[in-house]
Amino acid sequence: MKKYNVAILGATGAVGKEMLEILGERNFPINELKLLASKKSAGGEVEFKGKKYIIEEATENSFENIDVMLCAAENDISITLSPAAVMAGAVVIDNSSAYRMDENVPLVVPEVNPEDVKKHKGIIANPNCSTIIALTALNELNSYAKINRMIVSTYQAVSGAGINGIKELDKQVKDINEGKEAVANAFQYQIAYNLIPQIGDFDEIGYSQEEMKMQNEGRKILHNPNLKVNCTCIRVPVYRSHSESITIETEKEITVEKARELLNNAEGVKLIDDLQNKKYPMPIESSDQDLIYVGRIRKDISSDNSLVLWCCGDQIRKGAATNAVQIAEVLVKENLI
Amino acid sequence: MKKYNVAILGATGAVGKEMLEILGERNFPINELKLLASKKSAGGEVEFKGKKYIIEEATENSFENIDVMLCAAENDISITLSPAAVMAGAVVIDNSSAYRMDENVPLVVPEVNPEDVKKHKGIIANPNCSTIIALTALNELNSYAKINRMIVSTYQAVSGAGINGIKELDKQVKDINEGKEAVANAFQYQIAYNLIPQIGDFDEIGYSQEEMKMQNEGRKILHNPNLKVNCTCIRVPVYRSHSESITIETEKEITVEKARELLNNAEGVKLIDDLQNKKYPMPIESSDQDLIYVGRIRKDISSDNSLVLWCCGDQIRKGAATNAVQIAEVLVKENLI
Repeated sequence: MKKYNVAILGATGAVGKEMLEILGERNFPINELKLLASKKSAGGEVEFKGKKYIIEEATENSFENIDVMLCAAENDISITLSPAAVMAGAVVIDNSSAYRMDENVPLVVPEVNPEDVKKHKGIIANPNCSTIIALTALNELNSYAKINRMIVSTYQAVSGAGINGIKELDKQVKDINEGKEAVANAFQYQIAYNLIPQIGDFDEIGYSQEEMKMQNEGRKILHNPNLKVNCTCIRVPVYRSHSESITIETEKEITVEKARELLNNAEGVKLIDDLQNKKYPMPIESSDQDLIYVGRIRKDISSDNSLVLWCCGDQIRKGAATNAVQIAEVLVKENLI
Repeated sequence: MKKYNVAILGATGAVGKEMLEILGERNFPINELKLLASKKSAGGEVEFKGKKYIIEEATENSFENIDVMLCAAENDISITLSPAAVMAGAVVIDNSSAYRMDENVPLVVPEVNPEDVKKHKGIIANPNCSTIIALTALNELNSYAKINRMIVSTYQAVSGAGINGIKELDKQVKDINEGKEAVANAFQYQIAYNLIPQIGDFDEIGYSQEEMKMQNEGRKILHNPNLKVNCTCIRVPVYRSHSESITIETEKEITVEKARELLNNAEGVKLIDDLQNKKYPMPIESSDQDLIYVGRIRKDISSDNSLVLWCCGDQIRKGAATNAVQIAEVLVKENLI
């Protein structure tokens, strides 16, 4: 079996660490492994499958002989280093938002549009976490009856702000319990026991960047330029699973029974919808695994051809790291690296 | 100035305690005060305006000479004792859901439909907390352009389950921090660092009781039997303010500017909508006061004649106790007691 030289850029962050974990779990065929990070993090030691690796400082010269580079760095770092990796011959799977809307860059959720991988010109973008979670949940419904409109309210975990977000919730809860003041750095305000209705900056019509991603990325991934999405993104004091309350309007009716049947067989989805036994998706249960939990499926009593559902998915895993590794697996399967 | 004999039934609960607090704050003209609770809680001592009161056991004979009885008890207790209070000559303002949909019982948000108080036959019902918060936020918009459809996702505080809900979140966080298991009693599952998509039992089409209240009570309060509401109610680890992500479809367009103007002058509302300065409603800020904070107002980019907004309000105060005291104030103003 062919093996590949793999680099992770941003290997010390929440997503980068998880990418390594998932490459191991899924037995990705690795030949050589290179763990890259900022100068500050370089020199640290990481164990992977019984072997020790030293974190190296990422530079434009880090990518010789690399087949696939998983980028878990911020936009500015990705913009600096991803082209260098491509120039050196690597295929880059980029978790930043830098290239997502670039028409030369496929934006891929492997359960939804794996074939788009084939069009890559060096970079493949990993969608935004909330978008991945929603579209994995909705894909089979959209295939059955095209979704024209989505109304989404998110409940997003602190892991969306990386390790600092997780640490901040932890520290604030402890400080508040000890009667100290909660200090906010990773988020705009205290997140412990609070909700923050801002994720990213706002545009001139009052939507946050995170809110517009659902429509912009959704249109590209579903190949539906007419998809309309009204999204409200809220940060909640939950550690690592995002949840979403979703209403979809479809071009023809999907009955609740049909939706359950479709979701029961949907790739990447676990249907949890047994109300009599109080079974429904919850973020503590959907954490630390890869499936999107979907439930609370019901007819929208306020409109025809409209369904309501609730889904939860691990933000660091399927919302970022797992999706990126799955894209790498598609590259392997399609002999594209 | 005329003074009234006031009783609080359920005076030792979260809402009952707050009712007393608010009667004091707002200088409700009290002559005699009677604090009633279950046999278990009877005998306790409460101070109010420098005077000590003994909690008395509530019985059918507790209401002689009472002008107004504020009921903060559960449905079964209200059904047993509210009619006795009416028989004894009191007007009952009932925070339980027992009588809300009774056609002989007005259901009142004083900012929205104060005139309905006049139709009372002894009992006036206080609406559900999420309904009060949403309708206070939406009232002026609805007066300007009738709301035909609402799509609501709630983020509901643990105080909705009373003192036990508040204690449970507190205890779970402490237990988890000490490495112990979180025990769930007040809620179906752990609420610390989690979200629970169930508030009340589910009906046969998959909506929870709490979700249907928004449509059923909304229709009655707004005198709009055609109002359509698709609501998703989620419990979140926040102490005492409910938040709601709301999309409204109206019979004619409300521009964002018009909506801000209307809300800036709306009774019971505080407009907080200055995105450049990161000002928007948050539950920690809307707690311990009576206004409904409204912001994140924007055009729904997925539909015409549709607006999106975000609001937060203290569940125990405006969501329950303050609204009940405001109803009592309308009774006084209209010489109905």
